[in-house]
Amino acid sequence: MIIVMKSEVTEEEVKKVKSLIEKIGLESNLSKGATNYILGVIGDTSIIDPKKILAFSGVDKVMKIQEPFKKANKLFKAENTVVKVQNSIIGGKNLGIIAGPCSVESEEQIVEIAKKVKNAGANFLRGGAFKPRTSPYSFQGLEFDGLKLLKTAKQETGLPIVTELMSTDYIDKFVEDVDVIQIGARNMQNFDLLKQVGRTKTPILLKRGLSATIEEWLMSAEYIMSEGNENVILCERGIRTFETYTRNTLDLQAVPAIKKLSHLPIIIDPSHAGGYAYLVEPMAKASVIAGADGLMIEVHNDPKNALSDGQQSIKPDEFKILMNKVRSLAKIEGKEI
Amino acid sequence: MIIVMKSEVTEEEVKKVKSLIEKIGLESNLSKGATNYILGVIGDTSIIDPKKILAFSGVDKVMKIQEPFKKANKLFKAENTVVKVQNSIIGGKNLGIIAGPCSVESEEQIVEIAKKVKNAGANFLRGGAFKPRTSPYSFQGLEFDGLKLLKTAKQETGLPIVTELMSTDYIDKFVEDVDVIQIGARNMQNFDLLKQVGRTKTPILLKRGLSATIEEWLMSAEYIMSEGNENVILCERGIRTFETYTRNTLDLQAVPAIKKLSHLPIIIDPSHAGGYAYLVEPMAKASVIAGADGLMIEVHNDPKNALSDGQQSIKPDEFKILMNKVRSLAKIEGKEI
Amino acid sequence: MIIVMKSEVTEEEVKKVKSLIEKIGLESNLSKGATNYILGVIGDTSIIDPKKILAFSGVDKVMKIQEPFKKANKLFKAENTVVKVQNSIIGGKNLGIIAGPCSVESEEQIVEIAKKVKNAGANFLRGGAFKPRTSPYSFQGLEFDGLKLLKTAKQETGLPIVTELMSTDYIDKFVEDVDVIQIGARNMQNFDLLKQVGRTKTPILLKRGLSATIEEWLMSAEYIMSEGNENVILCERGIRTFETYTRNTLDLQAVPAIKKLSHLPIIIDPSHAGGYAYLVEPMAKASVIAGADGLMIEVHNDPKNALSDGQQSIKPDEFKILMNKVRSLAKIEGKEI
Amino acid sequence: MIIVMKSEVTEEEVKKVKSLIEKIGLESNLSKGATNYILGVIGDTSIIDPKKILAFSGVDKVMKIQEPFKKANKLFKAENTVVKVQNSIIGGKNLGIIAGPCSVESEEQIVEIAKKVKNAGANFLRGGAFKPRTSPYSFQGLEFDGLKLLKTAKQETGLPIVTELMSTDYIDKFVEDVDVIQIGARNMQNFDLLKQVGRTKTPILLKRGLSATIEEWLMSAEYIMSEGNENVILCERGIRTFETYTRNTLDLQAVPAIKKLSHLPIIIDPSHAGGYAYLVEPMAKASVIAGADGLMIEVHNDPKNALSDGQQSIKPDEFKILMNKVRSLAKIEGKEI
Repeated sequence: MIIVMKSEVTEEEVKKVKSLIEKIGLESNLSKGATNYILGVIGDTSIIDPKKILAFSGVDKVMKIQEPFKKANKLFKAENTVVKVQNSIIGGKNLGIIAGPCSVESEEQIVEIAKKVKNAGANFLRGGAFKPRTSPYSFQGLEFDGLKLLKTAKQETGLPIVTELMSTDYIDKFVEDVDVIQIGARNMQNFDLLKQVGRTKTPILLKRGLSATIEEWLMSAEYIMSEGNENVILCERGIRTFETYTRNTLDLQAVPAIKKLSHLPIIIDPSHAGGYAYLVEPMAKASVIAGADGLMIEVHNDPKNALSDGQQSIKPDEFKILMNKVRSLAKIEGKEI
Repeated sequence: MIIVMKSEVTEEEVKKVKSLIEKIGLESNLSKGATNYILGVIGDTSIIDPKKILAFSGVDKVMKIQEPFKKANKLFKAENTVVKVQNSIIGGKNLGIIAGPCSVESEEQIVEIAKKVKNAGANFLRGGAFKPRTSPYSFQGLEFDGLKLLKTAKQETGLPIVTELMSTDYIDKFVEDVDVIQIGARNMQNFDLLKQVGRTKTPILLKRGLSATIEEWLMSAEYIMSEGNENVILCERGIRTFETYTRNTLDLQAVPAIKKLSHLPIIIDPSHAGGYAYLVEPMAKASVIAGADGLMIEVHNDPKNALSDGQQSIKPDEFKILMNKVRSLAKIEGKEI
Repeated sequence: MIIVMKSEVTEEEVKKVKSLIEKIGLESNLSKGATNYILGVIGDTSIIDPKKILAFSGVDKVMKIQEPFKKANKLFKAENTVVKVQNSIIGGKNLGIIAGPCSVESEEQIVEIAKKVKNAGANFLRGGAFKPRTSPYSFQGLEFDGLKLLKTAKQETGLPIVTELMSTDYIDKFVEDVDVIQIGARNMQNFDLLKQVGRTKTPILLKRGLSATIEEWLMSAEYIMSEGNENVILCERGIRTFETYTRNTLDLQAVPAIKKLSHLPIIIDPSHAGGYAYLVEPMAKASVIAGADGLMIEVHNDPKNALSDGQQSIKPDEFKILMNKVRSLAKIEGKEI
Repeated sequence: MIIVMKSEVTEEEVKKVKSLIEKIGLESNLSKGATNYILGVIGDTSIIDPKKILAFSGVDKVMKIQEPFKKANKLFKAENTVVKVQNSIIGGKNLGIIAGPCSVESEEQIVEIAKKVKNAGANFLRGGAFKPRTSPYSFQGLEFDGLKLLKTAKQETGLPIVTELMSTDYIDKFVEDVDVIQIGARNMQNFDLLKQVGRTKTPILLKRGLSATIEEWLMSAEYIMSEGNENVILCERGIRTFETYTRNTLDLQAVPAIKKLSHLPIIIDPSHAGGYAYLVEPMAKASVIAGADGLMIEVHNDPKNALSDGQQSIKPDEFKILMNKVRSLAKIEGKEI
């Protein structure tokens, strides 16, 4: 950490900052630039809150050098994390393909789609039972009945279940029934939820918040990991920008960026990112080529009668065609499904 | 709601959309534009999900005409909502001033600050007991001990307490101890939390999410109100943009925009928006002149030793000077504290 | 165009809007929604400025149905535009690869790089002679000497030249010396420059502005095309968002979006988008798979001594490896270089 | 400037960076942090391009300490710049009020509005002769005829003229006829235009680009000032964010931020920022109270027949009422018009 003092700082002010640093148990190193005194702080500076230093008079800027995340940091664990659920794997040489409808709607619907996506090559089944909706008047999901139907579909196909948890009240139930617990974009900084799922052993799919920086996203993974659960899968699903022609802007650069910073697997959800079915195929393929560890894709047998997000779902036969392309591209990247 | 069909649409496709609308119980009205067929939907269209319509083949665009919020909508309640807690009021002719430290740290600290902000003219006391922090390694608040200290400060000063609730597990305790429950920016779309506080009778201070549109913010208020609790205070605290010289960008236009759309009171938090103490005074004053119903301001007796957000806190004597200016400006706007 | 009147509108107000529409020579069609009157406007509404309608009392919203661009619109020209310069082609089945240094620095530098990128498979040479720099104190390019050196490199390799024009003063010189004139992101809405290059016959590479929507970008292409020059190549180079870990956010969804809206070719510049060399390969490959018509890549023989943008340049041998991968991926997409 | 080396750096790599710094004529200072070597650079580092340093292998991050602008920097000129045109002044104790129509449309229109805004208290007349429009098919201004009409209005009222220059071709004409040359938001980084107006003696009103940071904006002012013209007035007119309910987001925090960084005057254009007439009054008043040096307001005698931007213009009588309020608020801030 580098602390830049104001040009008109007094010796007294510099001394106060130095003594704070020593009180915390770190060393400091004063040097003089062209116009400003600069204090270098030596030691594990992740324990200092930069905002606290900024409150001292005489301090102009505080600049971090170390990344603030530890357990999620590649520096501290060079080997890539691989998340394995039964025979389905995400990470390393294994491309994870999570597919299914936005919402679970009925037994026929979820079982039919599960069979079709499995047949096309998916290795996880997604389906919303509890749905985060902008409006309280929109369909909120079948809730516990939805979970039950997901379990039926799992029995029929063997596909592990990925579904979103929105309330800490249901954690026990989810741990029992669900294979991968999804934390949605809107809850990425619901720290209470993060801590509580961090105390389970179920793998967590952590979606990036709509306006979360890559660093904040990794800090949210850190919340989960610092409680003991290191099975975290990151999922980029589009960020909010000024562009309105697509629903959100897919930040595909996040894939190589995460690969540089962290050992955690990262997958892409092209359905939610773009918000339109025509964007799913090109972005899914691009994601695999950019190095993503997997995909999460909305598939619906009857998009126009879907209870949610029909406009961004593709049909099972389109998914099958896409999977054939994805498989070839995965091979080029040295991966398999 | 206006549904624009693609230029190459078939009659069959138009018919399917029309029949869906009728099935829902609404009327439609087909007309022909220069290049496209257009379906006007008549009736309460807030029950239709535009994304569902977009999933039909032949549909090009869906445009909403009605605002999707109802209970928060000025159209359905012309009179401004006034939130009253004991003798402290926010809304109408009353400017609410919420002041106090970012975090509750000790009895001396919170009692001393409470006395000083009361003396300067604040009519609510803020103070974080449970703190949402980006890092799991940062100070997370004194938690229940913090709540206890807030109650002590309330006993000493009579100021009602405003503090943030992050977990549904603690709702009962908060309802008992707290006068206004704050929902933080990061939880603005924690729908589970919104619904549960909507079932209480405690006034709710709903902060705008970092990248929430004004419409989404009002929809989150709608979540609370649709459960029965209509005592919602909106709080703008800066939105996330590309600018990094300030912490967030204060969207002051939200004040007249909310006044046009809703009857709910709106207050401004200049401390969190800008992130630096020097921005607090000009933005607090500007907020009052722009028509805000109140302010939320961080005040700390010893900012450089604050356990959180020291750099954006002002000192009690600075707050006193600010309050004198605020009082004069409030009078110009026909308001009082 | 749909005009939604306010719920409390008077007949007089509706009449005034109707008569304006007729005066312009278009038809209108009044209907009644649940709460509002709605006026549908029939005819070529691209000649009406929505903001003018909004100024009428009684008007609540104006919604466009037609896209405002014509010459750039796929509706009016179904066949994809292919830009051909000597034997180098961008568009259709042809992937255009533009490579070279950020700035032209010396004859050895530009000729050596030109030979190497040609050898690796590039079919256009890029190199800045006039450089847009945020600071007036940064290197501004070799200017006319730079143009001369580019011509030398062209003589040596046969590669057509792509370079940026910043000033209308130099258009004649550029038309004479340059094969493709680049309009930079910062000048995307320099309408004077757009009109003047629109009067030339030289192909134009139009970079997307840092915060330009897809629609605004196509409208800038329309400025060029409406003056007679229809040889426009669009280039996505990253948009400005809140994320700071990468320089800009590459909006790869723009590729399928542009393909849906327009017949113009679109290429990707991964070097400027990400701002770091390690992002170039994954994003270049992803761009090809997403359907881009080409790439623009910074290659420098000695990045650490580059006079500009060294951190985002790759070396000629890295470019060669990348090109081998790009060629295989192009084949998958049915394209060739 | 602080250069952070990668944790696995070699001594050779550090030496290369050190020797570059010395070659440039600056000193460096190597120290060892917990995990990384850090090089402090001493001297006028504004001459080093951080991106050049980043291209060296072994370099992890480069952090600037000095602001990159000089002539615009408050550190190098403590006294506030005051721009004076005849008897109209912007800066210091003087609030500048620039008012008039978006576009000049006819002699009657501009003269009538000029008289009315003068009478209400404006001390500058605005009016577009050359208009930057997103669409080539929109009204582009009366061009030279517009300039002539502005001069007529000036003769009738004595108000100095502020109008936008979009093309370097017309600089001589503008210098002759115009009192303050406006550089529009879309041309904020049209560096050729900035340099050329920097060689005139006419005061320049520099609008902030839609997605320009405060630092980039000041660097554009630096372009003008470094050519010799130090009469620059900054104008905030809203930035582009995700919010669509208002046209742009007015960044009012830019006022105190600019006051902290620079001696240049800053004014606010609430008409373009919000895009709707109802936002003008609250934001104009808030701007004055936040410390702005002036306002730029669109006033039209017949907004619904305006040839551009009618929906954001207020009428002369509304402007008069606003000016009465502005005058009282100015007095509170120790200013006069």
